[in-house]
Amino acid sequence: MIQKVLVANRGEIAVRVIRACKELDIETVAIYSEADKDSLHVQLADEAYCVGPTLSKESYLNKTNIMSLAKLTNSDAIHPGYGFLSENADFAEMCEAVNVTFIGPSADSISKMGTKDVARETMRKANVPIVPGSEGIIKDVDEGKKIAEEIGYPVIIKATAGGGGKGIRVARDEEELVKGIRLTQNEAETAFGNPGVYLEKFIEDFRHVEIQVLADKHGNTVHLGERDCTIQRRLQKLIEETPSPAIDEETRAKMGQAAVQAAEAVDYVGAGTIEFIYDRKQSNFYFMEMNTRIQVEHPVTEMVTGVDLIKQQIKVANGEPLSFKQEDIKFEGWAIECRINAEDPFRNFMPSAGKVEMYLPPGGLGVRVDSAAYTGWNIPPYYDSMIAKLITYDQTREEAIKRMNRALDEFVIEGIFSTIPFHKRMMNHPVFIQGEFNTKFLEEYDVLTDDSVEEVN
Amino acid sequence: MIQKVLVANRGEIAVRVIRACKELDIETVAIYSEADKDSLHVQLADEAYCVGPTLSKESYLNKTNIMSLAKLTNSDAIHPGYGFLSENADFAEMCEAVNVTFIGPSADSISKMGTKDVARETMRKANVPIVPGSEGIIKDVDEGKKIAEEIGYPVIIKATAGGGGKGIRVARDEEELVKGIRLTQNEAETAFGNPGVYLEKFIEDFRHVEIQVLADKHGNTVHLGERDCTIQRRLQKLIEETPSPAIDEETRAKMGQAAVQAAEAVDYVGAGTIEFIYDRKQSNFYFMEMNTRIQVEHPVTEMVTGVDLIKQQIKVANGEPLSFKQEDIKFEGWAIECRINAEDPFRNFMPSAGKVEMYLPPGGLGVRVDSAAYTGWNIPPYYDSMIAKLITYDQTREEAIKRMNRALDEFVIEGIFSTIPFHKRMMNHPVFIQGEFNTKFLEEYDVLTDDSVEEVN
Repeated sequence: MIQKVLVANRGEIAVRVIRACKELDIETVAIYSEADKDSLHVQLADEAYCVGPTLSKESYLNKTNIMSLAKLTNSDAIHPGYGFLSENADFAEMCEAVNVTFIGPSADSISKMGTKDVARETMRKANVPIVPGSEGIIKDVDEGKKIAEEIGYPVIIKATAGGGGKGIRVARDEEELVKGIRLTQNEAETAFGNPGVYLEKFIEDFRHVEIQVLADKHGNTVHLGERDCTIQRRLQKLIEETPSPAIDEETRAKMGQAAVQAAEAVDYVGAGTIEFIYDRKQSNFYFMEMNTRIQVEHPVTEMVTGVDLIKQQIKVANGEPLSFKQEDIKFEGWAIECRINAEDPFRNFMPSAGKVEMYLPPGGLGVRVDSAAYTGWNIPPYYDSMIAKLITYDQTREEAIKRMNRALDEFVIEGIFSTIPFHKRMMNHPVFIQGEFNTKFLEEYDVLTDDSVEEVN
Repeated sequence: MIQKVLVANRGEIAVRVIRACKELDIETVAIYSEADKDSLHVQLADEAYCVGPTLSKESYLNKTNIMSLAKLTNSDAIHPGYGFLSENADFAEMCEAVNVTFIGPSADSISKMGTKDVARETMRKANVPIVPGSEGIIKDVDEGKKIAEEIGYPVIIKATAGGGGKGIRVARDEEELVKGIRLTQNEAETAFGNPGVYLEKFIEDFRHVEIQVLADKHGNTVHLGERDCTIQRRLQKLIEETPSPAIDEETRAKMGQAAVQAAEAVDYVGAGTIEFIYDRKQSNFYFMEMNTRIQVEHPVTEMVTGVDLIKQQIKVANGEPLSFKQEDIKFEGWAIECRINAEDPFRNFMPSAGKVEMYLPPGGLGVRVDSAAYTGWNIPPYYDSMIAKLITYDQTREEAIKRMNRALDEFVIEGIFSTIPFHKRMMNHPVFIQGEFNTKFLEEYDVLTDDSVEEVN
């Protein structure tokens, strides 16, 4: 039985894990960098230790220091949160080696999902829908033409050795394809020393819809419905909700089933998320990737299912079988999360560190705040800019949005800039309210200046 | 349709009502006394006006000022909250007279329930169980003896003109009864000029269990289950929960039915609460009184039913029929509320006013805070000492208590004394945890020093 958990993270997720541990009568050990000594997670844990200087690499990513501390404090488990070491297979392996329970999947599951082409191949074998395309590298232009014809234009040409937006080209017809393949091959040869390219259908009009899964060590895997994270800025999620306004009951069931298959294909244990591309035109969905950890947006799922995901992670790591089956999981109501970042939305979301002169979170019915902020806290400029997650819950989407609107309205954060004004505008944006949009929402609409937004409250 | 609500209250309940109005796109007008100008409800409302000096009588109870302000601001409704003017039949009548909707029952319903013997008689006729006793004044000692024999000892002798603990005497046998009747009659004659006394069975070992009802203007009345408010100090409720750990399904159904009958007997409209004495020995319940307003402890009901009671009050006042029937109301999970008072539990709960140097409410899953407090707020010493309601929700009572324990643990209120340490002890008290106790809990156990309490966290 886990008696003491070292929380290998900072900020709101460290606080979240400490809360779950306290409710389970489990002791907690916090770690912190020199810049974080006055952090809330440090104050809430039973014990807290500095593991290194400000730089993440030397503190929150310092495997050796964290591992030594776990042994020194007799912690029998480590919760990695999200980011930092949460999807680091080496770290999961180190934990196994010294007999400290890593609260997460096995190193092997992490690895399998961490490599994009391996994951795609594993999913194909497990009958999880993947974006149509070539099976690996194409031999030549003619094969490319044949495949593009099959899957239909537009297609995307990807250099297998590429990444980070490099070695990627869209082709909308055969002419563009022929040119594109050659250009991409040449570029890839020059840039990565590997000319291999493969093809995928290019889906432009899509929503980001993901499924939460939970698996125990006894072969039971369930899903907890979807989260719609279509509102993103530069691939950063800003607003998440469940259910998805775009998904019907049938798609939901299919997606859930596909997610369970995906998790089972890598012998997954713990809480994980299968991210899908939901093609709005075709009403199809395709595997995008799996996050082998708890996610920032997990609270919305907790609100509509009543399942405490962090507690479940700990119980599963403890070897306990899931106490519920798929058919026991009921979905009730609607939940939305706004990520409140210390950024100035009116200056291109420029990060805004400094002292929080006044902090007063909203309260009342259907409002949840997950945060490590407090009046007087000095936000260090070195880490993630998210300082609070505001979640509202109500019976319908319309009501949850109205509740979010009033909660944002009463949220007081003074002394720094925050994204509250951006979210206020979003909650009053007619297209957001109506619910039909894709991942390009923030490119299409200038939310902060759009005249169609009439702010209420 | 109600467009603008004047909130005739202060503190957390004023904030609660403003929140509901905002979510319904209704404008709000706050009122405040001179001592309350920096209050949170003043800051959150769309408009705010001072209605008089510090003394409640001259501000929050100043019917004429409040009424004039309602007309002046074009408010089409008044929400009275609890306390102050909420059960003032005259005020409800004044509202009717000037065509401002009083968000509450009719003056007539308030009156009928406000007079104890009238209410008792009304309940008897409506077949709502009342504490066994005489039908009105007893003729003589012989009638008293006969009735006492019928209902069984101990009995309580009450002067009909008495009140506030005066003119009340307990008799445990016939000898005490004969003496007691004479003494009480003589005393009542001297003190109140009216020697009339009546008898009631004296129930010593009881729990306070109440039922929330909701009725529209179209003849529909439903109940929303019970709240157990057995933990009291000098008749002040301190902790409330739902469901009650003492009530079984059958009793719950009977009590709910009785509460609906009680409300219907006075043509009740709006949200109201029927308080019952639950006799632990006999597993019987008896009508105690009806509160013809929203109650402090309403949030626990909202947590387990998902019904927003303040919004329902407004909708019903608006003339809308209830959107659900009795069978649609589902109860899920367990909710507990701790009233956080600005009092020093270690000095006999002495009120503690002054500046809140630091205020940080707890957050996370299953935690709700209803409060008007903030960092820097100067608590005025003139009004109710309750400064926050902390509500936790989880699947079981045990889990809700554990969540309350951790939430209390992270609740920061500095600069003044609060009852947080008292509640912490309660949540770790073996008898409270086990759930079997009566209204004398705090007389029986010295919670603050009791060795049996081992604090966790």
